[in-house]
Amino acid sequence: MKVSDLGEFGVISRLAAVSGRTKPPEHLIIGIGDDTAAWRCGSPGCGAVHLGTTDTVVEDSHFSFATFSWEDVGWKSVAVNLSDIAAMGGVPEYALVSLALTGDAAAEDIDRLYAGMTDVASRFGTAIVGGDTVAAPQVVLTVTVLGRAYGEGSLLTRAGARPGDVVAVTGSLGASAAGVEVLAGSAPGLPAEAASVVRQACLRPWPRVTEARALVEHSVRAAIDVSDGLVSDLNHVCRASGVGARVHVDRVPVAETVREHFGERALELALAGGEDFELLFTGPAAAVEKISAALACPVTAIGEIVARLPHQVELVDEHGRPFRLAGTGWDHFAESRKQT
Amino acid sequence: MKVSDLGEFGVISRLAAVSGRTKPPEHLIIGIGDDTAAWRCGSPGCGAVHLGTTDTVVEDSHFSFATFSWEDVGWKSVAVNLSDIAAMGGVPEYALVSLALTGDAAAEDIDRLYAGMTDVASRFGTAIVGGDTVAAPQVVLTVTVLGRAYGEGSLLTRAGARPGDVVAVTGSLGASAAGVEVLAGSAPGLPAEAASVVRQACLRPWPRVTEARALVEHSVRAAIDVSDGLVSDLNHVCRASGVGARVHVDRVPVAETVREHFGERALELALAGGEDFELLFTGPAAAVEKISAALACPVTAIGEIVARLPHQVELVDEHGRPFRLAGTGWDHFAESRKQT
Repeated sequence: MKVSDLGEFGVISRLAAVSGRTKPPEHLIIGIGDDTAAWRCGSPGCGAVHLGTTDTVVEDSHFSFATFSWEDVGWKSVAVNLSDIAAMGGVPEYALVSLALTGDAAAEDIDRLYAGMTDVASRFGTAIVGGDTVAAPQVVLTVTVLGRAYGEGSLLTRAGARPGDVVAVTGSLGASAAGVEVLAGSAPGLPAEAASVVRQACLRPWPRVTEARALVEHSVRAAIDVSDGLVSDLNHVCRASGVGARVHVDRVPVAETVREHFGERALELALAGGEDFELLFTGPAAAVEKISAALACPVTAIGEIVARLPHQVELVDEHGRPFRLAGTGWDHFAESRKQT
Repeated sequence: MKVSDLGEFGVISRLAAVSGRTKPPEHLIIGIGDDTAAWRCGSPGCGAVHLGTTDTVVEDSHFSFATFSWEDVGWKSVAVNLSDIAAMGGVPEYALVSLALTGDAAAEDIDRLYAGMTDVASRFGTAIVGGDTVAAPQVVLTVTVLGRAYGEGSLLTRAGARPGDVVAVTGSLGASAAGVEVLAGSAPGLPAEAASVVRQACLRPWPRVTEARALVEHSVRAAIDVSDGLVSDLNHVCRASGVGARVHVDRVPVAETVREHFGERALELALAGGEDFELLFTGPAAAVEKISAALACPVTAIGEIVARLPHQVELVDEHGRPFRLAGTGWDHFAESRKQT
């Protein structure tokens, strides 16, 4: 069997299975399979919980210099990791960046790349403290972000969803996927302002680090960031928690620009598009209401967690009838969609 | 100016300069420019110091599947990071691995890669706790290893060398570079057993994690691992410490197999070859003697730290006369040597 047949999640499961054969370290709380790993500091009397996550972006697979500036690439490569820390209910602190660069890149390009990285990192209190630089036939950037949780009991995990929880999401969805279409030139006729909005959503995602704190403070215990797509990411939560979820598609907060300009495809972009980097979380209805009141960004209840097999997402329309969706997220090996 | 003109160290200096413009985080001890970054846990009353390092290997630049097995690639990609933790006087704890794989890799190959990674990681108490998997035109592996120092005063930094210190090195040097030549087919006629020894040194470097502890216990304060080459790495120490160093080339512990079979090139391989991943350190003569007595592996005093400009290494022969060496380490962008 080839890696392309296994798919990204198949490879990860395989690694997790091998990893699971060895005894986990004494202070490890969460290993492979969540937004970040989490472990206790381990020093006697210290209650600190540290988080670590890493993400790689590859030129012409995750981005192209035809549409991304070097600053954009730098911003996004760091932002997606900050988002993972947020999705665990943590605070990012340090970043290590590994740059595989082509020899013909200009020195000023590297400055721009680094400027984009430090721009988003510094907005969220994160310092770039180390890394590696190597030569490669195309640009491959790997960013590792380390952070800390507010405490061991405060972690927002994929396994924390419980029947009766409300499913909620910050912000709005679909703009990043719409931006991919604009960057690929496959959304002609879009007004310039609308094109700019969705392009920016794709190029410069905004990690919900600040918002994550409100989730922790209101005792939410399950969250994930929307990177693969709403349905796909909620499926991860369902499987990890051993629950089902019902999502009312009419309640899904489709990004305004997408709703206005992408017609009947708007909902699909919001449900399956991915890379919105919003926080998708579950908790008691009262907690979701308090979080909504506490945050400046929209918080929308879109469904509920149910005790049901299979452990996956069921989409229903405004009449409670099953709603079918073609795409349910994307896979780095199996997917045909290319980001541009 | 191109990245290839800047060279690896030029790119790193550039990043360090940009990074240095922002206020360092409160708990950061060491940022860009040493073997690892180091920071305090930051929790009130906790004295823990955490370490983080990342390294990337690229197919056909750092290794080729013509000569490396998937297990070898896995082993080496983790081992070089464990070596960085050792060079700071730390203990490795957790690893995050980012795999950029081609879609046509077999699933069993990924198992082998992972087996090589977990093999070396588990020997040194390190658990792989997370990562990322993406598709790319060639294999690019980035491994991040996190660890802890014995304490803030115990860090072995590049900046800790002082005039009067003895310069010493663990084990022997040159075998890995000789292995590169064997793997490239440019050392014909080498007896099979000798070829096997040096090939293994290149494919399966052994990080000096255990030995690092003895350095810390005997109050050594400066170390680096031999990755770029003895002279090049000692130059890093000289620059960071603001000192010079004198190395007596006749005292350099050339690997036995290399001395026997590589004739007059043996010394060059030991001085400039790189990737031996031995610990190169400086400290009082008495400390070096105690470390030598405490360790099972050889520990050789090869020179001394001197107060002198320029802050670099001077090589001298057995009569104390200047010794000239052509190569002084390798650079990922500027170098012509290709590892095979």
